[in-house]
Amino acid sequence: MTRFTDFTRFAIDAIRNQRLAWIALCGLCASSAAPAWDALPQQAPVQADNPMTAAKIELGKQLFFDPRFSSTGTVSCNTCHNLMLGGDDNRPLAMGVHGLTGPRNSPTVWNSAFHASQFWDGRAASLEEQAKGPVVASVEMGMNNLDTALNRVRAIAGYRTAFAEVFGGKEPVSIGNAAMAVAAFERTLITPNSPYDRWARGDAGAMTAQQVRGLLQFDQLGCTGCHQEPLFGGPRKPGGHFAVFPFHDGGFVDQYRLREDSGRFAATGRESDRHKYKVPTLRNVALTAPYFHNGAVPTLEQAVRVMAAAQMNVALTDAQVDDIVAFLQALTGEFPAITLPRLPPTLGSSLRVD
Amino acid sequence: MTRFTDFTRFAIDAIRNQRLAWIALCGLCASSAAPAWDALPQQAPVQADNPMTAAKIELGKQLFFDPRFSSTGTVSCNTCHNLMLGGDDNRPLAMGVHGLTGPRNSPTVWNSAFHASQFWDGRAASLEEQAKGPVVASVEMGMNNLDTALNRVRAIAGYRTAFAEVFGGKEPVSIGNAAMAVAAFERTLITPNSPYDRWARGDAGAMTAQQVRGLLQFDQLGCTGCHQEPLFGGPRKPGGHFAVFPFHDGGFVDQYRLREDSGRFAATGRESDRHKYKVPTLRNVALTAPYFHNGAVPTLEQAVRVMAAAQMNVALTDAQVDDIVAFLQALTGEFPAITLPRLPPTLGSSLRVD
Repeated sequence: MTRFTDFTRFAIDAIRNQRLAWIALCGLCASSAAPAWDALPQQAPVQADNPMTAAKIELGKQLFFDPRFSSTGTVSCNTCHNLMLGGDDNRPLAMGVHGLTGPRNSPTVWNSAFHASQFWDGRAASLEEQAKGPVVASVEMGMNNLDTALNRVRAIAGYRTAFAEVFGGKEPVSIGNAAMAVAAFERTLITPNSPYDRWARGDAGAMTAQQVRGLLQFDQLGCTGCHQEPLFGGPRKPGGHFAVFPFHDGGFVDQYRLREDSGRFAATGRESDRHKYKVPTLRNVALTAPYFHNGAVPTLEQAVRVMAAAQMNVALTDAQVDDIVAFLQALTGEFPAITLPRLPPTLGSSLRVD
Repeated sequence: MTRFTDFTRFAIDAIRNQRLAWIALCGLCASSAAPAWDALPQQAPVQADNPMTAAKIELGKQLFFDPRFSSTGTVSCNTCHNLMLGGDDNRPLAMGVHGLTGPRNSPTVWNSAFHASQFWDGRAASLEEQAKGPVVASVEMGMNNLDTALNRVRAIAGYRTAFAEVFGGKEPVSIGNAAMAVAAFERTLITPNSPYDRWARGDAGAMTAQQVRGLLQFDQLGCTGCHQEPLFGGPRKPGGHFAVFPFHDGGFVDQYRLREDSGRFAATGRESDRHKYKVPTLRNVALTAPYFHNGAVPTLEQAVRVMAAAQMNVALTDAQVDDIVAFLQALTGEFPAITLPRLPPTLGSSLRVD
């Protein structure tokens, strides 16, 4: 991953020891350097056994927005992963049926297709596998089991037709097929062309001087060790990429209860996974407050401070925080226009809900 | 309201005494009669003090879909009045924050702009007045008061800008203005061109013979006395149109607890309003099960039986029920394409929610 011209790299090396050179360098970067940073691809990788078709994507969209597969008929995927917002719910902890809350903050669904694993603890290896979880989580969609959910899908004539057309076969309405449709839709939820992306493709004016400065500080501090471009999440390696959080105490652990959750350990039982999490994407992070696995940190400024302290044992200055936050705001992309789906009806009757 | 040619009226008079003539007559209607029934207008009436503009409608759409004005940040207008479905939630009773349920079934928002009053008991004289209610209903959006809700709107920069652009003035973010925007959006939620509407405009093949037969029976039984075309709801007269329900016992009152709710009496305290309700529209009624103010009747077939018994003291035959249900299904209109709004963000932070 060669990111810098020799000149820029030289300059960065200089900065490691001379913070006063920041502003001069970054003014230069913003105006003339052609940095070799990667922009977000316009399309997400497709899983070989789940090819994308327009009909499958449309079916997945319907399922994503349909609240009738929650026990109360009020909670859909979009409730916690709101596509009108940052692909999350802006709540500290996800809230599902009957006002119950889960233990973790809703991760964004935007660009989730670029992640190598899903959930905070990476316990799902694919979007397909992820999609089955919330339906039967008692504090999310609250269905007793996947068969009960499937029977609700089967009770809706329009879904029976759509599943048959998209998947064919003897039992087209299956959990596997439903998950494939939802995952296909989710692979369209990409937010390209952020200021950072336009800058990375050569539009030197797309980021402000402060945002470029923030990016370089972000890199310099070591944040890109985990939050790698272009996703600014963990690298896409098989099985996913995980990091211990918090690594240092840094002064925030008690305040924000950062070690109450055992992280990936709860999923694998391996002691080496204790407090490990999937490295989340920072794309659109300005839209997804509050922050971290437990949503305990209310602002992006404070989240940046906590990360520097907890992972690098560095106490940032206010100016550094401002610069990095400015850069992170440059990761807000363009959101595709989405037409509200019409959900297939149950004519003259409705599903039985709690 | 002259609906029939002389010949047709003669035929209907004959039918009042000769049920066996139904099929012959209705076959004739479906193929050649030009009945003078009214189709639903393509546009709803606009309130003089709330002119429609594209910017106001877009703002109203954002507010309609935004869950951040509920105490938990999870319930929007669209939760109970789901525009992906029949403009309701397909639940017996509306469910708001913390899984709390209200006492009544969510009425459809589609075509509500044609109603002379809003809510089951008609206690709001306009969409503008209605829009303020659910925000502070403890079992709906659950905000303590309208000012608290308003402060959440004010905390979002994009809304401050939009309100100023749409309304101007010293305090553009006001409850009155928010309600005007939502009402303006709701006036676009019209579903014209149902099979009935196309038939009423002269396309004799738009309804099946059974649907025409059902319409004539519906009229013949007296249903159109309250459910008047083209809305098939109460007539649009100042103050609204109300009817006692149930009027007769008809054998269903206990089974479906139809007299437990005192109806409009609870809103006005007038004894003459006991068990009175606004006559709801039957447009898209096939999509809005379960039925009645308490959502106690699960199917459209049974709802038709209950209405005939409770209002006209008539026990319908299965064939009559089938015909009327077929007609009611011809009231399902065309739904406008709606682009999901982008909701203005709170950059780097979020609203405090329950």
